[in-house]
Amino acid sequence: MKVLVDVSIVPIGVGTSLSKYVAECEKILKEAGLKTMLHANGTNVEGDWEEVFDAIKKCHQRVHEIGAPRITTTIRLGTRVDKEQTMEDKIKSVEMKMGK
Amino acid sequence: MKVLVDVSIVPIGVGTSLSKYVAECEKILKEAGLKTMLHANGTNVEGDWEEVFDAIKKCHQRVHEIGAPRITTTIRLGTRVDKEQTMEDKIKSVEMKMGK
Amino acid sequence: MKVLVDVSIVPIGVGTSLSKYVAECEKILKEAGLKTMLHANGTNVEGDWEEVFDAIKKCHQRVHEIGAPRITTTIRLGTRVDKEQTMEDKIKSVEMKMGK
Amino acid sequence: MKVLVDVSIVPIGVGTSLSKYVAECEKILKEAGLKTMLHANGTNVEGDWEEVFDAIKKCHQRVHEIGAPRITTTIRLGTRVDKEQTMEDKIKSVEMKMGK
Repeated sequence: MKVLVDVSIVPIGVGTSLSKYVAECEKILKEAGLKTMLHANGTNVEGDWEEVFDAIKKCHQRVHEIGAPRITTTIRLGTRVDKEQTMEDKIKSVEMKMGK
Repeated sequence: MKVLVDVSIVPIGVGTSLSKYVAECEKILKEAGLKTMLHANGTNVEGDWEEVFDAIKKCHQRVHEIGAPRITTTIRLGTRVDKEQTMEDKIKSVEMKMGK
Repeated sequence: MKVLVDVSIVPIGVGTSLSKYVAECEKILKEAGLKTMLHANGTNVEGDWEEVFDAIKKCHQRVHEIGAPRITTTIRLGTRVDKEQTMEDKIKSVEMKMGK
Repeated sequence: MKVLVDVSIVPIGVGTSLSKYVAECEKILKEAGLKTMLHANGTNVEGDWEEVFDAIKKCHQRVHEIGAPRITTTIRLGTRVDKEQTMEDKIKSVEMKMGK
């Protein structure tokens, strides 16, 4: 089952600068061969369900290893069986309706 | 790795009455032996990472099977390595600070 | 416009114990006269759109005042114009479908 | 109070094609003069708290007007008092740590 995910990982107990931890997670997602798109409040990920959630689990393990005692992550995830749809398709579809 | 999760599954393309689909997912979470607590905007789930996400995947598969062409789900998930903490612990901790 | 909200406030830069801050926010929501239900990963709130978001804004202001330099909050919010529905209605509707 | 928000609006009861409704909301955010960045699972918005949430309320009103009986929206929102930070700052900060 293919999944489109938007994941935002927030390490807790490491002060206010979180980008080092987010960058580690980005690397793990890329090393897993997943298609990703970083934005200002998270990362869009496209891939097979198992591979996506394995990678997110590795993110948690790695972020704990490099010092975060606690992590809270939010995920939006979409699946559909009516048609194939990529991350780019979703953006283009909205932009077309906006007259772009 | 233990995880505390808050999951809200929203089937799309089946009209405005969603509780039938949410109930199917509740059954799957319970059948998986996971500790759950239903609330007005989702379900808290406590368990092993693999078991929790396997159950959420089964929810998606089942909700597609019974007619939803598209699903969007949101998840808050927490892990911590500094101490053990249950769903009840989290609630009690806030209530104590409120003077209850 | 009436809204059902699920809000989870996460102060950043104050260590790993967050319940003190969550409790402050609970008090603000209650003082605003809003109907609330605390759960393990957030708080359900029911009320008028303006009053709910005014209260959430006051939560952020208060949590900054008592020491959190940064806050990340997640909100699920629902509105509907087809029928009236309370937090209790939503829970009962799912429980009925589960055969409870 | 300045806020960085990530908002994803999901109309319910209008079938599986949602981009028309998302596009309406994009227009409202832009007309409000807010800085926005559309991504595959939502829209990043930067602005004053009141203006951002007024615009999100207008999105709900408009999406109901054009036919959606029910809407569920998810929001991630961040405020900080330790430093100024834009959407671009957040992305650059992660990319630098990734060695870009």
